[in-house]
Amino acid sequence: MEETFVPLRGIKNDVKGRLLCYKQDWIGGIRAGIRILAPTTYIFFSSAIPVISFGEQLERNTDGTLTAVQTLSSTALCGIIHSLIGGQPLLILGVAEPTVLMYTFMFNFVKDRRDLGQKLFLAWAGWVCVWTALLLFLLAILGACSMINRFTRLAGELFGLLIAMLFMQQAIRGVVEEFGVPHQENYNEAALLPPWRFGNGMFALVLSFGLLLTALRSRKARSWRHGTGWLRGFIADYGVPLMVLVWTGVSYIPVKDVPTGIPRRLFSPNPWSPGAFSNWTVIKEMPKVPPLYIVGAFIPATMIAVLYYFDHSVASQLAQQKEFNLKKPSSYHYDLLLLGFLTVLCGLIGIPPSNGVIPQSPMHTKSLATLKHQLLRDKLVLTARQSMRKNSSLGKLYRNMQQAYDDLQTPLAYQIPPGLGLRELKESTIQLASSTGYIDAPVDETVFDVDKDIDDLLPVEVKEQRLSNLLQALLVAGCVAAMPLLKKIPTSVLWGYFAFMAIESLPGNQFWERILLLFTAPSRRYKVLEKYHATFIETVPFKTIAFFTLFQTAYLLMCFGITWIPIAGVLFPLLIMLLVPVRQYFLPRYFKGAHLQDLDAAEYEEAPAIPFNMTFDEHNIHTTNIDGGEILDEMITRSRGEIRHSNSPRVNSTTTPSPLEEINPAFSPRLPHHTFSTRLAEPRMGASPRSTRKLVEE
Amino acid sequence: MEETFVPLRGIKNDVKGRLLCYKQDWIGGIRAGIRILAPTTYIFFSSAIPVISFGEQLERNTDGTLTAVQTLSSTALCGIIHSLIGGQPLLILGVAEPTVLMYTFMFNFVKDRRDLGQKLFLAWAGWVCVWTALLLFLLAILGACSMINRFTRLAGELFGLLIAMLFMQQAIRGVVEEFGVPHQENYNEAALLPPWRFGNGMFALVLSFGLLLTALRSRKARSWRHGTGWLRGFIADYGVPLMVLVWTGVSYIPVKDVPTGIPRRLFSPNPWSPGAFSNWTVIKEMPKVPPLYIVGAFIPATMIAVLYYFDHSVASQLAQQKEFNLKKPSSYHYDLLLLGFLTVLCGLIGIPPSNGVIPQSPMHTKSLATLKHQLLRDKLVLTARQSMRKNSSLGKLYRNMQQAYDDLQTPLAYQIPPGLGLRELKESTIQLASSTGYIDAPVDETVFDVDKDIDDLLPVEVKEQRLSNLLQALLVAGCVAAMPLLKKIPTSVLWGYFAFMAIESLPGNQFWERILLLFTAPSRRYKVLEKYHATFIETVPFKTIAFFTLFQTAYLLMCFGITWIPIAGVLFPLLIMLLVPVRQYFLPRYFKGAHLQDLDAAEYEEAPAIPFNMTFDEHNIHTTNIDGGEILDEMITRSRGEIRHSNSPRVNSTTTPSPLEEINPAFSPRLPHHTFSTRLAEPRMGASPRSTRKLVEE
Repeated sequence: MEETFVPLRGIKNDVKGRLLCYKQDWIGGIRAGIRILAPTTYIFFSSAIPVISFGEQLERNTDGTLTAVQTLSSTALCGIIHSLIGGQPLLILGVAEPTVLMYTFMFNFVKDRRDLGQKLFLAWAGWVCVWTALLLFLLAILGACSMINRFTRLAGELFGLLIAMLFMQQAIRGVVEEFGVPHQENYNEAALLPPWRFGNGMFALVLSFGLLLTALRSRKARSWRHGTGWLRGFIADYGVPLMVLVWTGVSYIPVKDVPTGIPRRLFSPNPWSPGAFSNWTVIKEMPKVPPLYIVGAFIPATMIAVLYYFDHSVASQLAQQKEFNLKKPSSYHYDLLLLGFLTVLCGLIGIPPSNGVIPQSPMHTKSLATLKHQLLRDKLVLTARQSMRKNSSLGKLYRNMQQAYDDLQTPLAYQIPPGLGLRELKESTIQLASSTGYIDAPVDETVFDVDKDIDDLLPVEVKEQRLSNLLQALLVAGCVAAMPLLKKIPTSVLWGYFAFMAIESLPGNQFWERILLLFTAPSRRYKVLEKYHATFIETVPFKTIAFFTLFQTAYLLMCFGITWIPIAGVLFPLLIMLLVPVRQYFLPRYFKGAHLQDLDAAEYEEAPAIPFNMTFDEHNIHTTNIDGGEILDEMITRSRGEIRHSNSPRVNSTTTPSPLEEINPAFSPRLPHHTFSTRLAEPRMGASPRSTRKLVEE
Repeated sequence: MEETFVPLRGIKNDVKGRLLCYKQDWIGGIRAGIRILAPTTYIFFSSAIPVISFGEQLERNTDGTLTAVQTLSSTALCGIIHSLIGGQPLLILGVAEPTVLMYTFMFNFVKDRRDLGQKLFLAWAGWVCVWTALLLFLLAILGACSMINRFTRLAGELFGLLIAMLFMQQAIRGVVEEFGVPHQENYNEAALLPPWRFGNGMFALVLSFGLLLTALRSRKARSWRHGTGWLRGFIADYGVPLMVLVWTGVSYIPVKDVPTGIPRRLFSPNPWSPGAFSNWTVIKEMPKVPPLYIVGAFIPATMIAVLYYFDHSVASQLAQQKEFNLKKPSSYHYDLLLLGFLTVLCGLIGIPPSNGVIPQSPMHTKSLATLKHQLLRDKLVLTARQSMRKNSSLGKLYRNMQQAYDDLQTPLAYQIPPGLGLRELKESTIQLASSTGYIDAPVDETVFDVDKDIDDLLPVEVKEQRLSNLLQALLVAGCVAAMPLLKKIPTSVLWGYFAFMAIESLPGNQFWERILLLFTAPSRRYKVLEKYHATFIETVPFKTIAFFTLFQTAYLLMCFGITWIPIAGVLFPLLIMLLVPVRQYFLPRYFKGAHLQDLDAAEYEEAPAIPFNMTFDEHNIHTTNIDGGEILDEMITRSRGEIRHSNSPRVNSTTTPSPLEEINPAFSPRLPHHTFSTRLAEPRMGASPRSTRKLVEE
């Protein structure tokens, strides 16, 4: 993204870029067919469940003025509009925790004013939204989002981890509260007696841990060894929503003697209850707000604007990390402008506004990468099988597969030259074949094992389209109507889901993986090197990694501490934004440029690109027999599109090259993702045995 | 073992064999030092916890005549005697479920007789024990245990799995009962009201699943990536007992408002309670039993004798499976004779007798294999490091390690020639070194990676000694005194422990692994081949494996069904013994001899041994970078000492040999366990690519 502060230029660029692929955004989504439902339902649940819970929280804090009906409506409305006319369709919108905290604060302020009171709360909040929108317009027009370039992995991943901590905190707090007296008063009396409260709490532990453990397991179903491929695929795709249903079902098992209200379930009025729609006409009330308060609304508006600017941009950025190899352009400026419109719209109809959410947005991209992987895989397997049936040679097989691969590519002008994606497939397969003398003979599965080879060779790509976002927003809209059904979900299942989301957001976060590395026994570090891993593990000394990570951890804990401060706490993003100058001016004093480059690549200080061909030796290919899904999980969300799959230390420990390397020193990597890693700081010719051992011994 | 039915010859052979190594049994145990406590505590818990639970069950069923005090006393007494003068010290003795069922049946019979009544129950049971002992003497003298040769893997593993099912059934039943009204009446009234019963049941779910999951995890601690080696080793060694303590601690967390009795805890009188010792003088009562009943006692005695003969021998056999590479002789006949003495002793002092138990006995052997592995490993690592410090060449290094290895071997006449154990270490390391030109240069860690290479190369051996058995029996004896402490353990932790034991007994059971193989997707079968696996996976067609396994599963379910029949159910071992003729005369009609040989090696039909050298190709060595503990878990308890670590299918799929194989076609295996596999049915020169693919494609 060009760093520009010329008014409107950012927005213009964004609109131009996204218009080019707008049509394809829809066609691509529809062509994916029924499979689009997998990411859709996955994201729908991770979008709707927190929103419902925030709605409950808001209901308690605003004496019922706002409920889950309003938060769901806002999420659905903003989601639909954003998916239709928004810039980046990977971005998921929803009512988030900071919004709930700000609205709570605003309600408490209003409640005690004689000239406002609870009655004019939504009207005043409408004014806040108007101011917020104006500020957002200003930021968008002035190109404030160009700042996102300075917002490096250091800050982004710290923010991601902070959100995970907040989700986990909410999960723990939720389960603990199941042992106490609930906030709603209209509960079954018997269920509030100590014995039943104890039973309710224990049941909550069972349900929440049950959901958490089974949901985490089901996500890995594709790599299970047991069960048919169809079943495993189904569980991996729909396991998480399924588990919510299963554990909701389990919650209905104890009926004998157990009073209603055990376990506690979601609580929200039906949208057709009397009074539930009273807030839709809030625009009529807005002129009644005294002028002084209209002006005063500017103060909370600045806080919300800062929050939204930050959350929206970072959510968008995390959904577009380099390792996803996205092909369509970003749209930070235009999306912020649209967010302004959405905010004022929500304000005028009296519902809390939505903004881009974490971790749902990166989760969305990840699930679409899995989808794309499967679509590509199925197509190529089919092509390869057909070619083999016709006794094609390896050369012909490759041409057919290349053709099939190209067919699936987005036909866009700005795209990288077609055919690059499978080039490495050709090279490595042909190399293997020629070394075994099979180049011209008809290919059979002994030379090219269709199921496994294709899995290993596919690049990480994302099915970039608008359909999944639109569908999930429509499903959220459906939730408003399906309120009576939603109320059957136990709150404890919800807490389990919060914990699940926190844990799901961790893999791929390099900050998290560095923390784990610190706890890895030195004698076990070779295991990290054996798997896909980021560059820094080999190029940066362990002590530097440790120091960098400790600094980041201390900063994270500081941010987490700030969130505990009653109202100023919502402004923790300011602390994270402070990381931009810290990174730019402070860190370079204590860390070598090359190390910083590897630990936290910043565009503004990056060296020019050097074409790069990693040397893997032959052995690795045989150790990468993991499942495609697993490979994907490991490959995506790594540093700057680069992944190392190093030799095992034993191979390294023999300092002479292995025979295959001698035969063919430039043996090409069969891992295809770096096709799209366009920039690289320095040429690194494979893992040197020395650096590997250094890490292991240190 | 020689198959002999000459009276007393079996006993004589056993005594002769075990006397030879008796002194070493103690010296070896003491030399192991403090580490002997790891297997000791592990086995103590898995021995004591079920015995306590069976004691509770017996207390309910005999109106308090027999309690956990008696079952623990019997287990301790028999365990101490067996460890001191028994034949096979790997065998663990304890009061088992069949004994409990038989005593329950006997009590119900006696209770209603006017001339016996509850008062003479123990006296009559004493007579039953006398008859049982006479029958056991007879069986031992006549060499009935020679039959154990006909008792193949088919029957042994079926029995093992059946026991696992019964343990799991007990665990599930136990947790379900936590929701109901307990059998003991002297409970806190409040705790029996429906709300508290519900809470108790839910708490039981939390505690039992908590124990189960954490205990299973802790067993794998040695291969964790995080944490220091010391901590990981400690958790792997002592994690299970530790978790019992931890979850017992957790059960004390809820105190506010929660009445005593929630969660329910173990219930047993203290041994110093009045009346607890009334049964020790039962010998005085025995003459009071009417003569008719003394004769009638022969009927239950036959049933118990059959049970004990079967359980004791099979437990001993499973503790001595071929894959453990035991070096000391077996002692079936003498142990059965001793069991007779123990039975009559228990009968005369009015406690239920003990016999060899499953799964504790094989668990004991497994934990001692881990111990031996660590002792060997530490010694060799130390030696290797010292040699390197002196700049020894690889040849010298090897001689030093060989010396150290030999020092740790049992110096016995009947032992295999010393030095065989590390020969493969020498060959493979030297081959690696010479191929890289390092043979005469001083060795450093790039050639020989001490920590990892030694782990890979150590053979499976078991620390065969008597100390761990004696110590665990003494600890059980200590339990009797520590009754007030034991009562703090919640019953739900116990149920979790039952489930843990059931699951712990599964790995290594080929029957279980074949069941899993049936559920493995065809496209994933290559994953089985990539790991250590039994021979049959490559040599027997998948359909034959499936058919054999289905037959065995049907038989297992039949046996499980039989156990549900009220009293005849205890005789399910007869059904399992029926497998001997089925295996010998029926199965060979439907399965090829070679296939049966691989699926279920039977000594009586085995072909003569052919020296055998497996060919592994070089790639495997690099994929075996798993932790020593993991390797051990995989290697032990496999078929007849044979383990395959096959090529990945991709390597196989290139039909030409890989470069390294060309250079050195007889590249020696670096997996050392087959050193001790003395007999092999047919020469199998490595996994043929065809057989591998066949399985994958089928």
